Amino acid sequence: MSSLYWKSFALGLFLVVVCPAGRADEGMWLFNDLPARLLKDKYNFDISPGWLDHLQKASVRFNDGGSGSFVSPDGLVMTNHHVGTDCIQKIGTKEHDYIKTGFSARVQADEAKCPDLELNVLMSTEDVTAQVNSVVRPDAYPATAEKARRAVMNRIEKESLDKTGLRSNVVTLYNGGAYHLYRYKKYTDVRLVFAPEKDAAFFGGDPDNFEYPRYDLDICFFRAYENDKPVKTSDYLKWNKLGAKEGDLVFVSGNPGSTSRLDTVQHLEFLRDRSNPRALAMLERHEILLRVYSERSRESARRAQDKLFDIENSRKAYVGMQAGLQDPSLMAQKQMQEQKLRDAVNADPKLRASYGNAWDEIAATLRTSEGIYIDVSLLERGSAFESRLFDIARTLVRLAEETRKPNETRLREYSEAGLESLKQDLFSEAPIYDDLDTLELGDSLGMYAETKGMQDDLVRKVLAGKSPNARADELVRGSKLKDVAERKRLAEGGMAAIEASTDPMILLARLVDPEARRLRSIYDNQVDEPRQQAYAKIAQARFAAYGKNIYPDATFTLRLAFGTVKGYEENGRQLPWMTTIGGAFAHADEHQDQEPFRLPASWTRHKNALSLATPLNFVNTADIIGGNSGSPVVNRAGELVGIIFDGNIQSLVLDYIYSDTQARAIAVHSAGIAEALKKVYGAGRVVSELGLR
Amino acid sequence: MSSLYWKSFALGLFLVVVCPAGRADEGMWLFNDLPARLLKDKYNFDISPGWLDHLQKASVRFNDGGSGSFVSPDGLVMTNHHVGTDCIQKIGTKEHDYIKTGFSARVQADEAKCPDLELNVLMSTEDVTAQVNSVVRPDAYPATAEKARRAVMNRIEKESLDKTGLRSNVVTLYNGGAYHLYRYKKYTDVRLVFAPEKDAAFFGGDPDNFEYPRYDLDICFFRAYENDKPVKTSDYLKWNKLGAKEGDLVFVSGNPGSTSRLDTVQHLEFLRDRSNPRALAMLERHEILLRVYSERSRESARRAQDKLFDIENSRKAYVGMQAGLQDPSLMAQKQMQEQKLRDAVNADPKLRASYGNAWDEIAATLRTSEGIYIDVSLLERGSAFESRLFDIARTLVRLAEETRKPNETRLREYSEAGLESLKQDLFSEAPIYDDLDTLELGDSLGMYAETKGMQDDLVRKVLAGKSPNARADELVRGSKLKDVAERKRLAEGGMAAIEASTDPMILLARLVDPEARRLRSIYDNQVDEPRQQAYAKIAQARFAAYGKNIYPDATFTLRLAFGTVKGYEENGRQLPWMTTIGGAFAHADEHQDQEPFRLPASWTRHKNALSLATPLNFVNTADIIGGNSGSPVVNRAGELVGIIFDGNIQSLVLDYIYSDTQARAIAVHSAGIAEALKKVYGAGRVVSELGLR
Repeated sequence: MSSLYWKSFALGLFLVVVCPAGRADEGMWLFNDLPARLLKDKYNFDISPGWLDHLQKASVRFNDGGSGSFVSPDGLVMTNHHVGTDCIQKIGTKEHDYIKTGFSARVQADEAKCPDLELNVLMSTEDVTAQVNSVVRPDAYPATAEKARRAVMNRIEKESLDKTGLRSNVVTLYNGGAYHLYRYKKYTDVRLVFAPEKDAAFFGGDPDNFEYPRYDLDICFFRAYENDKPVKTSDYLKWNKLGAKEGDLVFVSGNPGSTSRLDTVQHLEFLRDRSNPRALAMLERHEILLRVYSERSRESARRAQDKLFDIENSRKAYVGMQAGLQDPSLMAQKQMQEQKLRDAVNADPKLRASYGNAWDEIAATLRTSEGIYIDVSLLERGSAFESRLFDIARTLVRLAEETRKPNETRLREYSEAGLESLKQDLFSEAPIYDDLDTLELGDSLGMYAETKGMQDDLVRKVLAGKSPNARADELVRGSKLKDVAERKRLAEGGMAAIEASTDPMILLARLVDPEARRLRSIYDNQVDEPRQQAYAKIAQARFAAYGKNIYPDATFTLRLAFGTVKGYEENGRQLPWMTTIGGAFAHADEHQDQEPFRLPASWTRHKNALSLATPLNFVNTADIIGGNSGSPVVNRAGELVGIIFDGNIQSLVLDYIYSDTQARAIAVHSAGIAEALKKVYGAGRVVSELGLR
Repeated sequence: MSSLYWKSFALGLFLVVVCPAGRADEGMWLFNDLPARLLKDKYNFDISPGWLDHLQKASVRFNDGGSGSFVSPDGLVMTNHHVGTDCIQKIGTKEHDYIKTGFSARVQADEAKCPDLELNVLMSTEDVTAQVNSVVRPDAYPATAEKARRAVMNRIEKESLDKTGLRSNVVTLYNGGAYHLYRYKKYTDVRLVFAPEKDAAFFGGDPDNFEYPRYDLDICFFRAYENDKPVKTSDYLKWNKLGAKEGDLVFVSGNPGSTSRLDTVQHLEFLRDRSNPRALAMLERHEILLRVYSERSRESARRAQDKLFDIENSRKAYVGMQAGLQDPSLMAQKQMQEQKLRDAVNADPKLRASYGNAWDEIAATLRTSEGIYIDVSLLERGSAFESRLFDIARTLVRLAEETRKPNETRLREYSEAGLESLKQDLFSEAPIYDDLDTLELGDSLGMYAETKGMQDDLVRKVLAGKSPNARADELVRGSKLKDVAERKRLAEGGMAAIEASTDPMILLARLVDPEARRLRSIYDNQVDEPRQQAYAKIAQARFAAYGKNIYPDATFTLRLAFGTVKGYEENGRQLPWMTTIGGAFAHADEHQDQEPFRLPASWTRHKNALSLATPLNFVNTADIIGGNSGSPVVNRAGELVGIIFDGNIQSLVLDYIYSDTQARAIAVHSAGIAEALKKVYGAGRVVSELGLR
């Protein structure tokens, strides 16, 4: 499992993607702008509005990064185990490690509520491009343009929320080429129904992550509730018992996080030589810290496991992305594409006048970025303060400050329309572990001091004359923010309460906030905004040169991808389109059942009862990326035939360029899921609910 | 175990240490310059020449980094398991993982020969300061001085070798304040006799490394052979069955690797803010690579385990050292000491004229270092080319080039006196694993490209148009250097053979060598040499200000430390001076026998037979550092009462400053070793040989 669990660890550069389509199965398409003709011509498939609407409303976004789908009329939601891990971890205790043991609610009353999980179902979209653009003068300074756009987006969202009661987000598509208002039905009472053991879900562990062949039961089931009752819905996916088979056309409906396919070559070089290596070094440092902490005791392993998994997963993704960027043949391809477009622009005086400077403008933002991206990461993104308590403190400080302002001038994440979700997270009862918070904070403070030097003025103030570890200890011990009531008191008390607080974390968050905001403002106005405008020009140029058949870059919003179920060749070996349950046992045997190749006892105990030829995992050519984890895979009839859980190692370059030679999406097969639920887990309730009796 | 396994991963800045002695049990003393009066006054102990000579000749240096001692008249040598791991690993195969299973030669013929282990026993020392200084004019330019000194040192060593047949090394002490010629008896036929399982030797693993209380049987036994027969010696340590007890005066005879106690504050800041963070990041990157590789299969874990252990150990040491340097109270202490000395120098016009500039001169070398230390690490120290095959190729290339020159002008490591040891390593039959060599080389090439940028001219030439991984694959597949006969052919063929070779590793080594040598020359002449001269001035200044009672900084040569067996207080808790065998079982129970807290089956099986109250590990205040691993601990009678294997976490700052408040050396107790050998392992041969029947 894993690779597709999108987390916002990157610098968050969401960029427009406009590719000449028709090439193979490329594309993460908007539900309201699908390549209908391509599907008709290539696959003889007609998308009907009903088919599409049903699939959209059966698709679920996991707000902390992932996808899923309704699979029963009673609000049962299936996603990946690794998407559900955050909740499974949080409902665990020292005595009950559900990640290790699995979880199965025998009756409805046993279903366990997640402390802070939010699910979103996209109900409608509306094009608000004209409304947004009407307030932004084309010749405005970047800072003015950014401010005006923020104001109108905050206002549109608030008006929509007031009118419909639905979660409302204005999404920037084509990096400013279009703005769509997305309205979501939001579920905040979500309960865990069933999860297998991690040893089955993540069989093969980190070594097999992003690899194929694979043998993972990377699934779990939640149930959405409203008013303490299961949600009733007719928009759920019907389970197809046979599941996907070789050569099938399949669709993937999910929320890819971000791609960078239209980055200029210079921009990719910046990622390759600057920001990716830094991000990777930070991940490696953090991974070592948590691995070593995890080895201390079983309980420490339990406490760190969800975070450690995320970090390992990100690390492996970065290694793969870097391998792509360091491959001269990939870069040569990008260089060629770029030159072709620039030649086309330069050949037309009008295009040249409008768009010819865009590449240089992006290069200018990279130079600005070079000087501040590390500081932005340390202070504004908070990598210097790896601590849940610090995150809470900063949110409280900014909440007080931002909510004093009119909605339209607030930072985007504190606009009225988003406050409910923000508070769901802020007031979560999920446990915070002092030892782990202290360890991570101490290490990140040490990293901060190393990066800026101990003599740096703000470093000195932050450390207050202590060593990083001693300071972390003092901050965590001294803070009262573990107490949710205290958080609520401070949130309700507004700026007066914040200013009166002597909580050391609050004081620290206030200490660094002016500099953090200053950096953000530079980044927003001198990097993000001009870059957005320049990429919008490149988008327009491609549009002019190659026509309209385009899809926007991934934005962690609902997209439809499609592809064919098929294997591929690797080092002269033909890899099959699917693996089987029997293959999982063979894979364990080959590794002498050594961790992480040890199947749980539940599997070995029921081996004889299992039909070993049942497909377990399969691959297809759909265009996916992190965030697609848990996406349903459906057939022409819109029935569920599988669930995406990973991409292979060759798919990691999909961040930059699509290919179907070897890159594959990896899914759990619907038949394999059914077989395991019935014969390994005896999960009768779920089996009945899925109609599998 | 572990922390004391000194490896030359640092930038190798061996510096002079001159401290006002008499403070507690500080000091890593030269055998020919001991604080006799201090020992008499404080401990009423008289060092007799015979006692000292016997201890010296019973002490053994493991040439790849570690210490040990003769413990029988038939050449039996005891050291730490983690010092022996390199050999234990190399004699293993896919079928026999002796690190995991342990090793016990039931008859002498079963003793297993190490492919490239060299042991050294210090036979004599001679002060050659006058001879060295006579050729170096005080007003010479650094480059001239460096060349002249190198020439005379190479010559002295060669003459000594020719005269005595002994391994001869001129050792720079007090950073140039003195030069001593060390003559060693060398053993290159060394065979493994006994080793426990790693689970016993390294019980508690990385989490317990550098911690106390501890419960490790970190020992193993080798035997030195000459002419295919066990070495006979009367200089072996008699085993004391009762072992150390609380309050005892004990001596530690071993080879501490390096310390930096007299670094200027600016120099320490450079370590803290520049070179240590870089070294740590490299270690973390490498550790992740090997941990992930190790998880692939049992065999990959076996292949990587020795290297992975070294890296984990170094990483934990760096984390501890950084924690010390980032502690403002430690730095304030160093600042105060420095100011006191500078005030004394400035108060005396003569001292001021001679030594007053030394601190500024060191600062100047730091500025030079800042500009090149990363490149030196990449190219000259080879961190860009993590590959055993590359190491071999470079050695072959340089061997050909250096041996064409007269001995006196060669790089130090290619001088005549050292060639035999160099070839022992170069022609080692130890296995090289293609997959691991490719993985490490690919990753380090990627790191090199990230550090310098893909556009860097030399990076482009090194990668030859390929991605780092593809290039590594090509290099490893294409090289014939795995074949020892091929290495010998190239070594014997001299420069003509090297120039005719089309081996891709040889070509790569030749490609980078000019730039590597250029960097080394800058570093030697503009950093090392002026720094050495400046530190020599500071040493003289301390000498003038505080008197003569001084010991030089550690140089991986034989030193005597002494201290008292005693516990210490930590967070209000009194930690005992020793732990017991029963404590090991209790420690495993507390961790539910989870890895790495699982005692091997041999222990659990024999638990009932064991006397659980037997001491297993103990602590004392002797002044040790990495390289002391395996050092014998002896009592007033010169009998063996224990063996050093680690320092606690508080001891990691001993690199910079001595303290006996909490810092402790950790040793395995002689009684615990005897108990385990008899009752867990039934190691009758060793038990008899140690006189323990």
